[in-house]
Amino acid sequence: MAQIIADRRDIDFVLYEQMQAEELSKSEIFSEFNKKAIDMIVTEARNIAIKELLPTQKDGDQQGCKFENGKVSVPESFHRAYQLFKEGEWVAMTEDPEWGGQGMPRTVALAAADYFNGANYAFMMYPGLTHGAGKLVEAFGTEKQKKLFLKNMYTGKWGGTMLLTEPQAGSDVGALTTTAVKNEDGTYSITGNKIFISSGEHDLVENIIHPVLARIEGAPAGTKGISLFIVPKIWVNDDGSLGQANDVVCTGIEEKMGIHGNATCSLSLGSKGKCRGLLLGGENKGMNEMFLMMNEARLLVGMQGLSCASSSYINALNYARQRVQGKNLLLQLSDPNSPSVPIIEHPDVRRELLTMKAYVEGIRSLLYYVGICEDRIRISTSEEEKAKYQGFVEVLIPIAKGYVTDRAFEVCSKGIQIFGGYGYIKEYPQEQLLRDCRITMIYEGSNGIQAMDLLGRKLRMRNAMSGLYEEGRKVIATAKEIHGLEDLASRLEKATEKLSKVGIHMGKTAMSFKAMNAFAFAYPFMEVCGDIVMAWMLLWRAVIAAPKLEKLVGANDFWERRSEIEKNRNAAFYEGQIRSAEFFIHSVLPMTMGKMESILETNSAAMDIPDISFGG
Amino acid sequence: MAQIIADRRDIDFVLYEQMQAEELSKSEIFSEFNKKAIDMIVTEARNIAIKELLPTQKDGDQQGCKFENGKVSVPESFHRAYQLFKEGEWVAMTEDPEWGGQGMPRTVALAAADYFNGANYAFMMYPGLTHGAGKLVEAFGTEKQKKLFLKNMYTGKWGGTMLLTEPQAGSDVGALTTTAVKNEDGTYSITGNKIFISSGEHDLVENIIHPVLARIEGAPAGTKGISLFIVPKIWVNDDGSLGQANDVVCTGIEEKMGIHGNATCSLSLGSKGKCRGLLLGGENKGMNEMFLMMNEARLLVGMQGLSCASSSYINALNYARQRVQGKNLLLQLSDPNSPSVPIIEHPDVRRELLTMKAYVEGIRSLLYYVGICEDRIRISTSEEEKAKYQGFVEVLIPIAKGYVTDRAFEVCSKGIQIFGGYGYIKEYPQEQLLRDCRITMIYEGSNGIQAMDLLGRKLRMRNAMSGLYEEGRKVIATAKEIHGLEDLASRLEKATEKLSKVGIHMGKTAMSFKAMNAFAFAYPFMEVCGDIVMAWMLLWRAVIAAPKLEKLVGANDFWERRSEIEKNRNAAFYEGQIRSAEFFIHSVLPMTMGKMESILETNSAAMDIPDISFGG
Repeated sequence: MAQIIADRRDIDFVLYEQMQAEELSKSEIFSEFNKKAIDMIVTEARNIAIKELLPTQKDGDQQGCKFENGKVSVPESFHRAYQLFKEGEWVAMTEDPEWGGQGMPRTVALAAADYFNGANYAFMMYPGLTHGAGKLVEAFGTEKQKKLFLKNMYTGKWGGTMLLTEPQAGSDVGALTTTAVKNEDGTYSITGNKIFISSGEHDLVENIIHPVLARIEGAPAGTKGISLFIVPKIWVNDDGSLGQANDVVCTGIEEKMGIHGNATCSLSLGSKGKCRGLLLGGENKGMNEMFLMMNEARLLVGMQGLSCASSSYINALNYARQRVQGKNLLLQLSDPNSPSVPIIEHPDVRRELLTMKAYVEGIRSLLYYVGICEDRIRISTSEEEKAKYQGFVEVLIPIAKGYVTDRAFEVCSKGIQIFGGYGYIKEYPQEQLLRDCRITMIYEGSNGIQAMDLLGRKLRMRNAMSGLYEEGRKVIATAKEIHGLEDLASRLEKATEKLSKVGIHMGKTAMSFKAMNAFAFAYPFMEVCGDIVMAWMLLWRAVIAAPKLEKLVGANDFWERRSEIEKNRNAAFYEGQIRSAEFFIHSVLPMTMGKMESILETNSAAMDIPDISFGG
Repeated sequence: MAQIIADRRDIDFVLYEQMQAEELSKSEIFSEFNKKAIDMIVTEARNIAIKELLPTQKDGDQQGCKFENGKVSVPESFHRAYQLFKEGEWVAMTEDPEWGGQGMPRTVALAAADYFNGANYAFMMYPGLTHGAGKLVEAFGTEKQKKLFLKNMYTGKWGGTMLLTEPQAGSDVGALTTTAVKNEDGTYSITGNKIFISSGEHDLVENIIHPVLARIEGAPAGTKGISLFIVPKIWVNDDGSLGQANDVVCTGIEEKMGIHGNATCSLSLGSKGKCRGLLLGGENKGMNEMFLMMNEARLLVGMQGLSCASSSYINALNYARQRVQGKNLLLQLSDPNSPSVPIIEHPDVRRELLTMKAYVEGIRSLLYYVGICEDRIRISTSEEEKAKYQGFVEVLIPIAKGYVTDRAFEVCSKGIQIFGGYGYIKEYPQEQLLRDCRITMIYEGSNGIQAMDLLGRKLRMRNAMSGLYEEGRKVIATAKEIHGLEDLASRLEKATEKLSKVGIHMGKTAMSFKAMNAFAFAYPFMEVCGDIVMAWMLLWRAVIAAPKLEKLVGANDFWERRSEIEKNRNAAFYEGQIRSAEFFIHSVLPMTMGKMESILETNSAAMDIPDISFGG
């Protein structure tokens, strides 16, 4: 069974028909990225993903990383893949060519990442972390620091990481205890222990640049006293040559549920008192600096989730078309000896597949939409417009990470279920996709943290909130004018109005003496926001698809046009868009309405129950 | 961190206060099982589970089973555990002492299984399958067959399995192709290949008795032509001594997502033409015979799910009480330097914990309720009463398997989330529990099959359906008279009325030309039935708890009685019962109401979408 990771037709639909990514080339910044160029990039990414990365997916899982004497080795096949990836200049797709990037729009880079992550996302975490670390150097580094580090990172010659977490400081970054003492030469001596460091040590690159959060002697407590440092694994001399090994020791790697191909390291800094680092950005500004990179990191995690879900869906769909098992329910009634059929004919399998499809498509649209907002921020010359899109990004990020990875995990679980017993064994990719996917709900701010961010910070951004409602309403208004979509439009309109009410209620409650209650509903609130965004994205897709479908097969009713659809892949695709929206709005949104009811009620049982009454 | 698997207080509550299991001892059959005896059994099961089985849980996962030259070896530590388990006579707890059983009520055996499975359920599948296979021999075997096999199985001296699945015959058992040809001596020559055989080959026992589904030459096609055979791994002579090895070869074991401690085998029967079997029961009666054992097997799978969920909950609860991370949201507002707190103080963690608690408790009540119904069938002398409880069991089994294992998996995922990054690593048990739990949604009839069973067969059992509604209504009526529960009662009443409407609608639709549509909603229908059963079980618990709580701490309002509750563990437990019901009915049931709306609508998108429009 050939794995194809993601549906190219769907990616193209989102890129060109929904987001109109080729329009970005009208700006000077992205002038090279016309449709032809974008097509080439996506095609090339898809080729590398399928031919070079996908074959390493199982190696990552089954061989995993090996730790010995402070050194970590990745599976052998990762080396060739990394070489090709580096040569293709894929590490810093969106960054400045001056520093080794490709200057692509984010939206286009997301399409490439859609394939790359779907092929082997544990592998992708090596260049992914490098890119993120490079961004910090680019944003906050001195010219000298940039010259010393940046190009080697963006070109993938060196690796990068991010050292935040400590055993007692996970979600609460402010509790970290790693210290930095200024030396006479302007460097800092760093001492501390970091854990859960993805790509923290490995043998794909000759040097690894660690951005490290630490506390300068005498700094304030909490997040206000945290600074950011560059700590290279091997010291980089002023002329750019490599010096001595720094006092950064990998003390072990984690045995995990999934993403075995990525080394999750414990790093000891300065255990011999000789770990040197360079201050990156301002003293005590580390948290704010980190936050600037957070949106991108969280969007990437959402993409990791989507990639797992998308692969799982495509695999399940192929399997359902090929696996013959059981009889057609209706035919069996008239003929007990009717032949067995591919399981895609069974109603329960269809419902599962359509659920998976709707989420995969809705999520893809959401992530690319965040991408295009970021691109518009870059190309816009109007401060107002920049602020508008920045607001959209801020509000959507917790959904694009928290809501998306929850749904992605669910999709992966359904992807196992459609395979039956075969879904549970390692011969097929489905169970690995679920295990890999599970971490996306935890890292880069656990999904509970995302929900708190949405309720506690983002909901207050009133302009952005109302701007997003406005965007949704535009789609609803268009849908109302399209034959066959009127009912979907008015249902979503009702749901959106209710969400607006829920938002006001939650905002008020969060500022009242019932604040704790409100936060006990932060998660359901994120879920209903996500559901409405999904419905919006899917209706938006349907609004684009319906007129095109009519053009292809005429304005007939479904049963009349059905035979045409079977013969025309484009028509079939557009029909599928309308069906995803119909399914989601009719069969998922009613639960969202119920959940909004429960949020409006904000029952206090979770806060009232005494700790002791939890039992145990 | 000590693992305690399940909350003894809760098990005792369900056994004595909710199900009144000690009343069973008034019957002659169960006269030995008074409260003291039950207490001893549960205590002993808990001791063995915690001291002997739990320490082998990780071995099972990490060492797994080894396959070499047709032989399978289990982890070394399993041998001692199995020895003790056998010596304690735990294999056939509910069966006739004449054949080596203990004659216990099912309800009591479930309480023991609650602990055993929570400690290491992959291990428990060895005696579990043996017990199930023994039941087939007991129910359908000749006296001679029983003498030859049964006692050795029920005492755990020999193992047992169940050989149904073949590569092209999973959910569709009727498609199996294994053949049986009658020999002159009355035995049958069996030829075929079976896969996914749990406990199919291992070194815990000297012989394994395989019940095998096969087709006698010339038998009708489909399920009507299937017969059941006993195929021993080593032939058993008429005097009970072991003869030659039978022609049953283990050709490999599966690499799986979880339950590594249990060997999932491919077995080749008769590859040398020498596999002999004995007909068990009647010719072509194999499917019906299997069905008689199905309810028990499915209830056991529900228990496996509960055990994973219960362990995961207790672990998460202990962790949340100990793990200090982040500040109290409210205190932080007034004092930014307020100390970090155990994460159980965070609203989102409380909501997650209370969700887990409500499901674990509701599921426990449901499974034990099925158990007590089975016990009442056994002790009742009235055919009418027997039929009533049999009906309850039939209707509840697909929920106790399908709905329960879905929720158990969700609970296990929440159990990971509360641990944060630590939940994803193998140092803690949470991720194993999730991986182990995942198979419960697939085997013994996938959950999609359970949903079809509920809609297609069980919904038609009108007496049983209305009898169950009646039981629910009794609880609601009682709750209406209890201060503080009135509102919960009327909410559940409304939901139950709506479910009744949904049931009628689904029954009609399933018999109409829209049958395929109805079956596309079989799964959501199972889910809403399950939700209502959960709410019923939880309200039932609250109905018992509320008056006892009042007795302990007076009829004060919650805030007045709170300090008393903190000091009194019993009062705390009862308070917890009321809170679980409140949480579920206020915050989960509204989604159920929404889901019922979507079922009533029965939108046809999943059936209408052309196959080609799924994409790929």
